[in-house]
Amino acid sequence: MFYHSGKLQYQVRVDRPDPQFAKYLQQAIGGVEGEIRVAMQYFFQAMGARGDSKYRDMLMMTATEELSHIEFLGHAVALNLEGAPLTVQEDAARDPIVHAIMGGADPRHILSSGLSAMPVDSNGIPFDMSHVYASGNLAADMMANAMAEGSGRVLASRLYNMTDDAGMKDMLSFLIARDTMHQQQWLAVIEELGGMQAVLPIPNSTPTEHEATEHSYYFLNTSLDEPTPEGRWTSGPSLDGRAEFTVREKVEPLGQKPDLGRARPNSGTQIEQQ
Amino acid sequence: MFYHSGKLQYQVRVDRPDPQFAKYLQQAIGGVEGEIRVAMQYFFQAMGARGDSKYRDMLMMTATEELSHIEFLGHAVALNLEGAPLTVQEDAARDPIVHAIMGGADPRHILSSGLSAMPVDSNGIPFDMSHVYASGNLAADMMANAMAEGSGRVLASRLYNMTDDAGMKDMLSFLIARDTMHQQQWLAVIEELGGMQAVLPIPNSTPTEHEATEHSYYFLNTSLDEPTPEGRWTSGPSLDGRAEFTVREKVEPLGQKPDLGRARPNSGTQIEQQ
Amino acid sequence: MFYHSGKLQYQVRVDRPDPQFAKYLQQAIGGVEGEIRVAMQYFFQAMGARGDSKYRDMLMMTATEELSHIEFLGHAVALNLEGAPLTVQEDAARDPIVHAIMGGADPRHILSSGLSAMPVDSNGIPFDMSHVYASGNLAADMMANAMAEGSGRVLASRLYNMTDDAGMKDMLSFLIARDTMHQQQWLAVIEELGGMQAVLPIPNSTPTEHEATEHSYYFLNTSLDEPTPEGRWTSGPSLDGRAEFTVREKVEPLGQKPDLGRARPNSGTQIEQQ
Amino acid sequence: MFYHSGKLQYQVRVDRPDPQFAKYLQQAIGGVEGEIRVAMQYFFQAMGARGDSKYRDMLMMTATEELSHIEFLGHAVALNLEGAPLTVQEDAARDPIVHAIMGGADPRHILSSGLSAMPVDSNGIPFDMSHVYASGNLAADMMANAMAEGSGRVLASRLYNMTDDAGMKDMLSFLIARDTMHQQQWLAVIEELGGMQAVLPIPNSTPTEHEATEHSYYFLNTSLDEPTPEGRWTSGPSLDGRAEFTVREKVEPLGQKPDLGRARPNSGTQIEQQ
Amino acid sequence: MFYHSGKLQYQVRVDRPDPQFAKYLQQAIGGVEGEIRVAMQYFFQAMGARGDSKYRDMLMMTATEELSHIEFLGHAVALNLEGAPLTVQEDAARDPIVHAIMGGADPRHILSSGLSAMPVDSNGIPFDMSHVYASGNLAADMMANAMAEGSGRVLASRLYNMTDDAGMKDMLSFLIARDTMHQQQWLAVIEELGGMQAVLPIPNSTPTEHEATEHSYYFLNTSLDEPTPEGRWTSGPSLDGRAEFTVREKVEPLGQKPDLGRARPNSGTQIEQQ
Amino acid sequence: MFYHSGKLQYQVRVDRPDPQFAKYLQQAIGGVEGEIRVAMQYFFQAMGARGDSKYRDMLMMTATEELSHIEFLGHAVALNLEGAPLTVQEDAARDPIVHAIMGGADPRHILSSGLSAMPVDSNGIPFDMSHVYASGNLAADMMANAMAEGSGRVLASRLYNMTDDAGMKDMLSFLIARDTMHQQQWLAVIEELGGMQAVLPIPNSTPTEHEATEHSYYFLNTSLDEPTPEGRWTSGPSLDGRAEFTVREKVEPLGQKPDLGRARPNSGTQIEQQ
Repeated sequence: MFYHSGKLQYQVRVDRPDPQFAKYLQQAIGGVEGEIRVAMQYFFQAMGARGDSKYRDMLMMTATEELSHIEFLGHAVALNLEGAPLTVQEDAARDPIVHAIMGGADPRHILSSGLSAMPVDSNGIPFDMSHVYASGNLAADMMANAMAEGSGRVLASRLYNMTDDAGMKDMLSFLIARDTMHQQQWLAVIEELGGMQAVLPIPNSTPTEHEATEHSYYFLNTSLDEPTPEGRWTSGPSLDGRAEFTVREKVEPLGQKPDLGRARPNSGTQIEQQ
Repeated sequence: MFYHSGKLQYQVRVDRPDPQFAKYLQQAIGGVEGEIRVAMQYFFQAMGARGDSKYRDMLMMTATEELSHIEFLGHAVALNLEGAPLTVQEDAARDPIVHAIMGGADPRHILSSGLSAMPVDSNGIPFDMSHVYASGNLAADMMANAMAEGSGRVLASRLYNMTDDAGMKDMLSFLIARDTMHQQQWLAVIEELGGMQAVLPIPNSTPTEHEATEHSYYFLNTSLDEPTPEGRWTSGPSLDGRAEFTVREKVEPLGQKPDLGRARPNSGTQIEQQ
Repeated sequence: MFYHSGKLQYQVRVDRPDPQFAKYLQQAIGGVEGEIRVAMQYFFQAMGARGDSKYRDMLMMTATEELSHIEFLGHAVALNLEGAPLTVQEDAARDPIVHAIMGGADPRHILSSGLSAMPVDSNGIPFDMSHVYASGNLAADMMANAMAEGSGRVLASRLYNMTDDAGMKDMLSFLIARDTMHQQQWLAVIEELGGMQAVLPIPNSTPTEHEATEHSYYFLNTSLDEPTPEGRWTSGPSLDGRAEFTVREKVEPLGQKPDLGRARPNSGTQIEQQ
Repeated sequence: MFYHSGKLQYQVRVDRPDPQFAKYLQQAIGGVEGEIRVAMQYFFQAMGARGDSKYRDMLMMTATEELSHIEFLGHAVALNLEGAPLTVQEDAARDPIVHAIMGGADPRHILSSGLSAMPVDSNGIPFDMSHVYASGNLAADMMANAMAEGSGRVLASRLYNMTDDAGMKDMLSFLIARDTMHQQQWLAVIEELGGMQAVLPIPNSTPTEHEATEHSYYFLNTSLDEPTPEGRWTSGPSLDGRAEFTVREKVEPLGQKPDLGRARPNSGTQIEQQ
Repeated sequence: MFYHSGKLQYQVRVDRPDPQFAKYLQQAIGGVEGEIRVAMQYFFQAMGARGDSKYRDMLMMTATEELSHIEFLGHAVALNLEGAPLTVQEDAARDPIVHAIMGGADPRHILSSGLSAMPVDSNGIPFDMSHVYASGNLAADMMANAMAEGSGRVLASRLYNMTDDAGMKDMLSFLIARDTMHQQQWLAVIEELGGMQAVLPIPNSTPTEHEATEHSYYFLNTSLDEPTPEGRWTSGPSLDGRAEFTVREKVEPLGQKPDLGRARPNSGTQIEQQ
Repeated sequence: MFYHSGKLQYQVRVDRPDPQFAKYLQQAIGGVEGEIRVAMQYFFQAMGARGDSKYRDMLMMTATEELSHIEFLGHAVALNLEGAPLTVQEDAARDPIVHAIMGGADPRHILSSGLSAMPVDSNGIPFDMSHVYASGNLAADMMANAMAEGSGRVLASRLYNMTDDAGMKDMLSFLIARDTMHQQQWLAVIEELGGMQAVLPIPNSTPTEHEATEHSYYFLNTSLDEPTPEGRWTSGPSLDGRAEFTVREKVEPLGQKPDLGRARPNSGTQIEQQ
């Protein structure tokens, strides 16, 4: 069950409101790299967690934190929209600066939300929940979470560079910090499970006889004219410790030429296909 | 530039066509865990790759392989739809087996595609390209790729269990094998870059002064009544080697109570808000 | 800032797991009538609230409650999926009951989530945040909320009828009850603002001179052959108390026949259009 | 069956075409507050109407009117796009005004539609029909309609402020007027059904024994530190006349700590979860 | 401006209601091959029509007809849902026929719409307006329309085969007939414009100097092992009468190996990329 | 099976990078008129092709070519983003030109992709695969393909006009040329099948007795006040050679007034509807 405090998790201050930056910040709320995504992802993973219950608790605790991140980011968007133009006069419309500010803003911040945050990205596209990755597999989910936090910290770092407002920089430095922790927190679960060698290949419960293991450890060079890019993945022990990496180049297809034959009557095709 | 062979990368055989399994297989084509996603993800990552060009080549080569996976899976769907009912007679409609088969099938396999694969998931939902994660950050992208392959192998393993058709099991064992390789291939890039300690936190180019590092290494317990789940993430050195993990419990908010004041005239609110 | 308790807001018990009912329940989580929608709608309305701060507090408190509803519904879905088939044998595949159960289930509950809830509706369609209505106008938002709770209680009542599991009926009776309260709670705000007459027309801040009031109070019968449906809306005082309702039938258009003339060169049209 | 006149329902005149305002107007066509939504919502409600047929007729008549609104708004968009730049010269590209105009325009008005309206919102996002609320419940639908018209009039009022074109202001004043009528028209149905007390709680057909009525009339304060916002919803008779409103603060969860136990074999999880 | 008659364009009769066929029929309402699409496509094309106004009129007239098709199909869906189960008893839940019927139905027909049509396809996916193709180019639009009607008649023919209800077959035979007319109607515009030779290549207003015409008339065989499929497209005069078709096989790429160099500082990449 | 060369199909050169044109180019990658769509459309049509296998081969060869188009367009986007601003200083933020450039750019090119192409359109909307039309009917698919190439060439021509960069114009002239070929290539299949008369009506396999042919050849004028637009579609032989075109004006509806009666108990409606 969830509870709430009336205060924000972190202080939000905007020294000079900027409607264009409000639009940029939306990416951190409703973008695929944003906070709604991680809040909901950890929440649904927690609800589906099976096995040691401490992972469930950990997921729910951080889901709860991410809800708080949405909250202070939402406030930051609203503060950046203070003073945005709500009416147009002829002179203003001809002023290139006013025009540019309005051109760079999200029109729905004026038309739809009344100068407030929306659950959308920086192009105004609503977040959709297909991005909530929750597979029931603990290792797959931890990878998904570390990935989400990696992309989140990339985004926060880019946002930090795109503003010179001291209040916004302060808030983003907090976000960058929490994304640092969260990245490592999920990878630490993998380390605790024995590290990459133990968890790979995901799922590690798939019986070997379900796998055509003769195809499991070669890098396939599908290029007609480029040499194989050599690296850790072309030789040496596989990361799961079960085999050696090799390379296959200029391979022939292993399968047949597909042929579905003629169409059946009643199938809605042209007569010539039947 | 792309080229094509008329043959499939791997042999596809269906011993007993099953329209319901055709629907399940769609998840491996057009689901978020499927092959369109990884083909396009590696393709767009390759197009945006900056830095050592071998990663670009590697991405493009595997993108090309994933296109071939779409192709043989698409053939498998079509073969599973052979013989699906295209007309209805009264008797059949009352036969529970026929009814069940048709109820469990994707109606669009009959109505829209003419018994062929579609770029949709097992609920008939079209794949959308928002799931193509390509951030320009090499480590973030490698994590995204390892995650995608992890979820892909989870899916292929579940599909393997959901059929008893020998041909389908053979094909899926090939997919499971390639997903094994691909998971490790992307993680091997991280190992080559110095391992997790070197790449974390992603992006490792963010200057320390952009980060409120006093918030970077504590696990935040946001629960009112659950103890902190202890683990690798609550003590010991951080995975990036820069600090020690700690814990904060029952923390007070650091921010203010948000207040946007009254609404401006002309903002489309009720008078009582202004 | 959000906090969490490890316990559910309400007790969840499933006496006889039913994968098909798990799919139905998804509508109450990720459907447009569901809990993610109201949780996020109240949350974003709260973040954008201007005017008397008590409405902000009220919105955030109920947003928090709705998050708890997602949580116990998610647990109910998982419990209904206990025992769902994860493997297929030839005999089973021919058993109409097994086939029917699997045909009626959401395949992604098996393939994607590992027998857990997903943020999707009963057809497996992910919730998208475009359904979060938060206009910044208090009265419009209260109407949106009352509407959402109305559709939510309709849904919960239908779900109640579609199960005979005592545990599920008990849980749904709680949901029905809370939806009763929430419907009235939002309408009570309107009553407190002076009732419908005072808040209408929304927004009540639009100056009269912005409105062609000669068109504001007639019901327009656009039918060629049906009489005007008489009722409260065809005569008597308007609900905002500003005028009398009237009716217009068989009206002629007030506008011109539209004509865009010929296309400009360079506009990508056919020559014949230019 | 539908018919058409060649003339527009209302006169459309644009004195000074403005591509950026064309983009803003799209919100009134294809936004969630727009005319496609209400046209289709009333149309589908009409098709599903059960009970007194006058509501069906009323819905269909207004659906038909809303189609006419799409039509004149579409013409307004095209007229605002007259003269938009279709070619670029080097000098123009360096002119900040030209750049700003093009930056503020919807690129697809030039690239995709040939200077015409599209069924999209002001960010170019296509309308999707999930926003057509038609529940089969008359009261829920009337609330949905009043809400839609409320948000529509908020939007039209904001658009009115964002232009200084006399023709556009005239057209928008007509829209504002019709939205005034439509808001009240749907609420008048509720009044005719006996008013809010009679229709609440929606659906009023749910048997009392399906509802845990001990939870139906309290406002739940989920905040840890904010006092209950007092108002019409915290005391006094409930709006449905069945009970008194009360308040619950600092409530303990009523449910259990959820626990799904260990994962089953064959479920695609990690071994450690099983 | 639109008007309406209270009667349907065509008689709808359902002899034996079938919830599963109701779901199938949804494809003809809200599927990409369905009536909402063509109604809206012709409507938006009409609003953007430039050049001879008779095409605008023609488009609007048929748009109006398609609205009437939505209407009678919507009634057909509702009639097929008459008698669908709204409550569940234990025995019924174990009856394979009941289970199969419910498994094959759209759950939202019960849960969301109250046994009525929805603007969704046969998988319950809401129609989205991105499928409204209206380019401003008359020939491109006519092709889009002929295509839409082609896919519509394919769908109607398949639906005809999937029912044995005499009333439904009668209604579908009307739809098939109108799709016959509409296919030809749009192609007749092309014939009137001079036929394919005159309208091709679309747009025929593109100046020849904007086109690298040395690449305009060869079929490119990108296969490594398949011979060129010979046909009308590999030799003989081009359909636009401007050149002869030829073939290119085993072509080398004409472009460079792409290289974006190293990443810039501040771009959120890993240090190793910079 | 697919293969790849390291070189681009066509040379890409950008003389003066322009972030706004990068955004425009996205329409040609991820727009409905773009290359992902045709690549995937031909790919899925090929996988479902039944009948003469040369059409399958032809589809797959051109699908492969379109993948190469995505690739060089993706490179063009990245080159146009070279030098885009990644940091903001106070002065710059006040410079109208800088502001305009950033306002006209896609913010996600900076925030999400790290200055690279994304699988989205010019408004940043991700491509979704519902636009992959593959019906199994050869003639319907050829029409869909010719349509797609028509809209593609319209788009490429408009893009050509919207840039004055010589490198970009050169690349677009290649695209225009290939779209010329592809348009004709698909229509040539129809010609080879006997021309429009032979393939119409699509599908030509629908038995005549499934069609109410008395409704198959009249143009329906649904206007109340406009004369029938006379043309090839109002008289003369039908394009399929089976009948003569005629016209019907001021037609009365053929169907009944729809009536669903009262609602059933347990259907979640208001009592007044039951």
